[in-house]
Amino acid sequence: MENQRPLILVSNDDGITAKGISELIKFLRPLGEIVVMAPDSPRSGSGCALTVTEPVHFQQVRRDVGLTVYKCSGTPTDCIKLARNTVLDREPSLVVGGINHGDNSATNVHYSGTMAVVIEGCLNGIPSIGFSLSDHAMDADFDAMGPYVRQIAATVLEKGLPPLTCLNVNFPNVKEIKGIRVCQQAKGQWSKEWESCPRKTDTNYYWLTGEFTDHDPDNETSDRWALAHGYAAITPTTVDVTAYHFMEELGNWFN
Amino acid sequence: MENQRPLILVSNDDGITAKGISELIKFLRPLGEIVVMAPDSPRSGSGCALTVTEPVHFQQVRRDVGLTVYKCSGTPTDCIKLARNTVLDREPSLVVGGINHGDNSATNVHYSGTMAVVIEGCLNGIPSIGFSLSDHAMDADFDAMGPYVRQIAATVLEKGLPPLTCLNVNFPNVKEIKGIRVCQQAKGQWSKEWESCPRKTDTNYYWLTGEFTDHDPDNETSDRWALAHGYAAITPTTVDVTAYHFMEELGNWFN
Repeated sequence: MENQRPLILVSNDDGITAKGISELIKFLRPLGEIVVMAPDSPRSGSGCALTVTEPVHFQQVRRDVGLTVYKCSGTPTDCIKLARNTVLDREPSLVVGGINHGDNSATNVHYSGTMAVVIEGCLNGIPSIGFSLSDHAMDADFDAMGPYVRQIAATVLEKGLPPLTCLNVNFPNVKEIKGIRVCQQAKGQWSKEWESCPRKTDTNYYWLTGEFTDHDPDNETSDRWALAHGYAAITPTTVDVTAYHFMEELGNWFN
Repeated sequence: MENQRPLILVSNDDGITAKGISELIKFLRPLGEIVVMAPDSPRSGSGCALTVTEPVHFQQVRRDVGLTVYKCSGTPTDCIKLARNTVLDREPSLVVGGINHGDNSATNVHYSGTMAVVIEGCLNGIPSIGFSLSDHAMDADFDAMGPYVRQIAATVLEKGLPPLTCLNVNFPNVKEIKGIRVCQQAKGQWSKEWESCPRKTDTNYYWLTGEFTDHDPDNETSDRWALAHGYAAITPTTVDVTAYHFMEELGNWFN
């Protein structure tokens, strides 16, 4: 059918009831037809996990002109796989994850369910973007991001993205964003990651927590630097994780 | 203490009772002191998931000379984080994941709990290797891999690995391995990923399944090609997923 509006597939990892995904839908609606398939409960930190030990279930929860919403019992990755294979009648022009409550800069990309949505879209050849805000609060204020989210999504709808490449977009928690910076993933490390929570005499129970140390905090090209200085950080991200620079030396080791 | 044997931290995603991890321990024991912290149940396809909604618990299940084994209620990533922060008294010289029942070539690296073990080690600056066999059977035969696993682990213990770089090593399911090939991640796509399993009149239940299509099956540098032709495939893998090649063009879009 000609003159169809672009189809935009949306998911997240904070779950279908999170404020971030509602705000994202609001920002994206002028750009196309929106289909949402999102987890029925929070799935923060789920990485690219799949559900393999039980069936996955989905259910339509809303249908409006230009907007259909499903909730799903699976992970963020399951949501994208399931939507593409069941409820969609054409391939989306764009996959969008978010808006995450909490940033996915630096090494957090590996643990992020929001970026799992994006990686899954990208692995299927669909231009894909993840949006996150550096504020974990349930009632976080996403207003300042709105125009940026819409501009970035519209630009990617128009231009596409290179093969195997997606965008990880993080916003600072500020009233006025200074602008956009194209960044690299900050290099650093989590530490003090466990807090003991003994159960009676058993001291082997722990809650995950932690502090992130940036190994190069003055690096003005990093996503963490951008966030700390009030800029939106766009980190182009590859799903081809081959370490090409190391292939030759490694070959010498085993020949 | 001088003359300490290298400390090797081992985990997997098939769980503590899988044959693959027992075989891995057997292959690695001559190389150093082994500490195992592995999931108490299968966690296949868990990606880099974290446990954030409940505490994680671990328990010692075996202690021998040079070998201590813990089971853990968390994900593969939790296992590495928890071992480093609790039971280990020094940083490991090597983190090893596997041996996975089933290969982690191509795009499977993103979903793999085995490679999550390896990514977690690598993010913490520890040389890290994942081993997988192209056979999902519970009683898979790992014998042919043994000398290769030991050689590769010994080489990495001796030489280390570059920053942010780890190894994804996959073995074909053959009696005689032809040798080692250093590879890139095969490019391709999963399809037909869901099998309907209706519950009474509700048809929205699905099991995850799927077929992988290699987009370039004749590419002799890919890990899938190596496996299909009887070689062990070592794919050097980066945890810096910045798409550096796209930064300049992306900058032009938003300036």
